[in-house]
Amino acid sequence: MPKKPLILVTNDDGITAPGIRTLIRLMNEIGDVVVVAPDSPQSGMGHAITVNTTLYVKPERIDDGPQKEYSTSGTPADCVKLAKHEVLDRVPDLCVSGINHGSNSSINVIYSGTMSAAIEAGIEGIPAIGFSVCDYNWEADFKPSEPYITTIVKQVLENGLDPGIVLNVNVPRLPAEEIKGIKVCRQARANWVEEFDKRRNPQGKEYYWLTGKFVTFDEGQDTDEWAITNGYVSVVPIKYDMTAHQYIDQLNSWNLND
Amino acid sequence: MPKKPLILVTNDDGITAPGIRTLIRLMNEIGDVVVVAPDSPQSGMGHAITVNTTLYVKPERIDDGPQKEYSTSGTPADCVKLAKHEVLDRVPDLCVSGINHGSNSSINVIYSGTMSAAIEAGIEGIPAIGFSVCDYNWEADFKPSEPYITTIVKQVLENGLDPGIVLNVNVPRLPAEEIKGIKVCRQARANWVEEFDKRRNPQGKEYYWLTGKFVTFDEGQDTDEWAITNGYVSVVPIKYDMTAHQYIDQLNSWNLND
Repeated sequence: MPKKPLILVTNDDGITAPGIRTLIRLMNEIGDVVVVAPDSPQSGMGHAITVNTTLYVKPERIDDGPQKEYSTSGTPADCVKLAKHEVLDRVPDLCVSGINHGSNSSINVIYSGTMSAAIEAGIEGIPAIGFSVCDYNWEADFKPSEPYITTIVKQVLENGLDPGIVLNVNVPRLPAEEIKGIKVCRQARANWVEEFDKRRNPQGKEYYWLTGKFVTFDEGQDTDEWAITNGYVSVVPIKYDMTAHQYIDQLNSWNLND
Repeated sequence: MPKKPLILVTNDDGITAPGIRTLIRLMNEIGDVVVVAPDSPQSGMGHAITVNTTLYVKPERIDDGPQKEYSTSGTPADCVKLAKHEVLDRVPDLCVSGINHGSNSSINVIYSGTMSAAIEAGIEGIPAIGFSVCDYNWEADFKPSEPYITTIVKQVLENGLDPGIVLNVNVPRLPAEEIKGIKVCRQARANWVEEFDKRRNPQGKEYYWLTGKFVTFDEGQDTDEWAITNGYVSVVPIKYDMTAHQYIDQLNSWNLND
């Protein structure tokens, strides 16, 4: 019997979130699972790392599954670093992050703790996938996403991923029978139009809550937003080489050294 | 006389850091300056945004310059959102972030609060540049960087930047006479090799400090690391469309929908 793959599971909603509990259960069917996840929700943390405070790692026993689990006081990116360098004794075959409660499509990849963990794993040389279901509720129904997650994980284990590539997977909020399949996409051009909710505290001092609405301004039918809106699971290959290679020539035509 | 450009200045080291004070002074020579920056250091914050706590904005008067200044309780990305939507009454012509105390070359762009502010400005439709000097000291000498910053800012104001493009500028830690000029580069393949410093607190509980060393494994002479090591100011055009476009065909050859 071939050796089972070692799978690292993490997220940004915290180790007790229903999304990660679903992902752990699915991964237990495929490999040997080690969970290293934040002890509390870390949404909106982007690719934060903890350099100015100390980090704790605590063994956990949250359900009866065969996985090993640890919670940390760190961010999702910290969890991956701690897993690789302190918790695990060999490099995992795969890192999966999520299942996030809420979309990480389009520009959300930039703000996402879920994706930052997957990207950190990619940087550390571990094939990695971030999974999200487009439903922000704590009680989101993850059941329809399960067969797609299993398929994608098995395909990554079989095919591998080139160095520098990480997958961003988003599952629409739909009943199982309405999901049409998996679509490989590009990141849609879209952003958040902020609306700050301005209030006064009991001492009369003004403060703000960040709110906003998500606006897509991309008409393409090859984007993750189009796929999700049209009933597909989107898979976007992303890379952390952020260089705009095709813009280098243009900058070289400027008068930068006159 | 043509109208002076409106320049938004921010950073991640906090509004009183010597780096941002230098940048404000330089920008006052070029345009009308509004500063919206964190009230305390935010290094390693990545592209974090504040969604779970409230944000404060406070007018500041730190020196005798003509700029308007505000500190906020938010992250660098929050500062840009607050500036655009609450502080400024028109979209600025340029956003400059920094001068960061320490390198943001190569993979550091992912972890950098300085660059996250510039990227956020780009997302919001504002031409943006992040500036860093490769010296982590609070008392870093920013003088040698000054003419290069002025040149690059003037060139961006003159040429504009395509939508989706942000510049990442790093200045080597060298005396002025040893800097050879400006070089347009790609992001080097490099990463941090973590070393967690494991300790025990007075109660006997284990904790970690994140440390590590930066390792370049890219032999190219067209990278930011090469430029900095060889005495050049590096300019990398980056983009926040993280799609690995050339990898889409490969994923489409997988068995994702069987």
